[in-house]
Amino acid sequence: MRATVMYGAHDVRVDIVPDARLVESTDALVRVTRACICGSDLWPYNSMAPSATGNRMGHEFVGVVEAVGSSVRTVKKGNLVVAPFAWSDGTCEFCQQGLQTSCLHGGWWGGARLDGGQGEAVRVPQADGTLVVLPVAPDDALMPSLLTLSDVMGTGHHAALAARVRPGNVAAVVGDGAVGLCGVIAARRLGAERIIMLGRHADRIALARTFGATDIVSERGDAAIERVRELTGGLGAHSVLECVGLGEAMRTAVGIARPGGAVGRVGVPQEQTIPSALPSFFANVTIAGGPAPVRAYIEELLPDVLEGRIEPGRVLDRVTDIQGVPDGYRAMNERQSIKVMIRF
Amino acid sequence: MRATVMYGAHDVRVDIVPDARLVESTDALVRVTRACICGSDLWPYNSMAPSATGNRMGHEFVGVVEAVGSSVRTVKKGNLVVAPFAWSDGTCEFCQQGLQTSCLHGGWWGGARLDGGQGEAVRVPQADGTLVVLPVAPDDALMPSLLTLSDVMGTGHHAALAARVRPGNVAAVVGDGAVGLCGVIAARRLGAERIIMLGRHADRIALARTFGATDIVSERGDAAIERVRELTGGLGAHSVLECVGLGEAMRTAVGIARPGGAVGRVGVPQEQTIPSALPSFFANVTIAGGPAPVRAYIEELLPDVLEGRIEPGRVLDRVTDIQGVPDGYRAMNERQSIKVMIRF
Repeated sequence: MRATVMYGAHDVRVDIVPDARLVESTDALVRVTRACICGSDLWPYNSMAPSATGNRMGHEFVGVVEAVGSSVRTVKKGNLVVAPFAWSDGTCEFCQQGLQTSCLHGGWWGGARLDGGQGEAVRVPQADGTLVVLPVAPDDALMPSLLTLSDVMGTGHHAALAARVRPGNVAAVVGDGAVGLCGVIAARRLGAERIIMLGRHADRIALARTFGATDIVSERGDAAIERVRELTGGLGAHSVLECVGLGEAMRTAVGIARPGGAVGRVGVPQEQTIPSALPSFFANVTIAGGPAPVRAYIEELLPDVLEGRIEPGRVLDRVTDIQGVPDGYRAMNERQSIKVMIRF
Repeated sequence: MRATVMYGAHDVRVDIVPDARLVESTDALVRVTRACICGSDLWPYNSMAPSATGNRMGHEFVGVVEAVGSSVRTVKKGNLVVAPFAWSDGTCEFCQQGLQTSCLHGGWWGGARLDGGQGEAVRVPQADGTLVVLPVAPDDALMPSLLTLSDVMGTGHHAALAARVRPGNVAAVVGDGAVGLCGVIAARRLGAERIIMLGRHADRIALARTFGATDIVSERGDAAIERVRELTGGLGAHSVLECVGLGEAMRTAVGIARPGGAVGRVGVPQEQTIPSALPSFFANVTIAGGPAPVRAYIEELLPDVLEGRIEPGRVLDRVTDIQGVPDGYRAMNERQSIKVMIRF
């Protein structure tokens, strides 16, 4: 089968790899119908050391179940399913708490040992815990939005929860990528009265406005902090969604948070330390978040997608087939696309 | 009047300074009856650059109101009052939310311009918002515990709240100073089932046990992390109270936190960044806390002190008069005393 393999920085290839197949009795074999490229895939795309064997890529996909292991109970052959960006057993202490990204028997797609979502088929471990059946056909018009439940929409929602967005709050979103844009949707959905988007790209700003952003701040660094403070009577935002992962973004996030407020961080940190230890301390600003347990959020967000109340699929502004994946990485890396969907 | 002035590292003197007096109509003049030396006073004690004018010291005190400004309504001449370690108006947006340390019209004791608690009298700004009347006599036997409501007991409580201690939780306390010991009291009071104290001093460990610590870990660094993980089935503590402020203490705190858990930090950070950006992210560990709004907690904690359910005053293991304050700093700095009370 064909699958995406990254061999080093700027070296993404579509290879013929061994067909995905069932191994454990808890596995499902899923034929991928839609997948996407993630902003987090761009970190290795820009920094990965050369590797002879490469890493299988992709952690966001929707597909049709082709076969299930003997102990799988909740998904059946023929089901259309969405997979969260981490797989999980659904039964351990952390899964029961809704923190499936810390599942004691779970893990991450791709890499050297597992299939990735950017390929024609995937062996899904812990299928009962991992997969969610979608009550639509594989070519439904809602497919882009349903696909975002595998990562970016759930991640934006996690950022908003970690940042403690409440009805009437002032929220701010640092980062105008797909996650930040979904963060705007999530903040609005949770009742934020004002949503300040920090971003600079005209197309993304326009989308942020349609998603509910009420104010746009295009300055950077200290100027951005000053501008948000001006917009909030000097006090800052109650809730800040940090959707980048760079230290500078976190420094901005802390700088625009109101005393007693919270920063929800969902961008994978690119540095070993969190900046602004003292400003965050003296203002009692909480720093929360991490990899979103999107599995916990799919059931909650699904009705809003199915009934058209939210349209996170609009962040997928470019479509390719699998052969176009390397160019999709390039396009996202050069900011020509917010997020690329792969259609199989 | 006599007051404590720090002129540089290891240079603490008791000076004759101008008598405290009313300045604003919102002031009260308080004759100090008890005060103490704080662990946080040891940071400048070990690092302050020499100063010709010095800084007035002390932010924890109980005293008798001697006079009030014309607009003060809630305290009267003759009242015995306790002062939180920050003064606040009690009416601004942040005070109303219970975050008095971020009061828009508040501030901190001592320094170059205000009286400090380690002196014979204090001008208290914003007296109505700041002071709480104590329903006992100035020489009551409960005085040490009542005095801790000005800082360390409220700070331990804040750490426990920020770490989200809940009934049945496993809590861990990093730091066996007065705040850490009060953190043990607070964690127990909030219902933690297990309380792991990380500490090495026999006298403090003994006190921690009487306060409710169920396990003691005396290893340091990675060995401490491993030991706490062993004690918690490999999972770590739900709630970690970081009561030191050094980067290494925060690194330990994150390392012993359970996925989805929280670190409540109340030790003033001594470094510009927070370590363990990635471990805290991948485990969705929340980092919360800051200067405790102890003013918000006094009413809640006071009945427990008055009725003897908690005895935080036991951390005050040495008593001096004002002339003995410089030696009190030395004793605390050399770990001969947990915390020194000053009796006037």
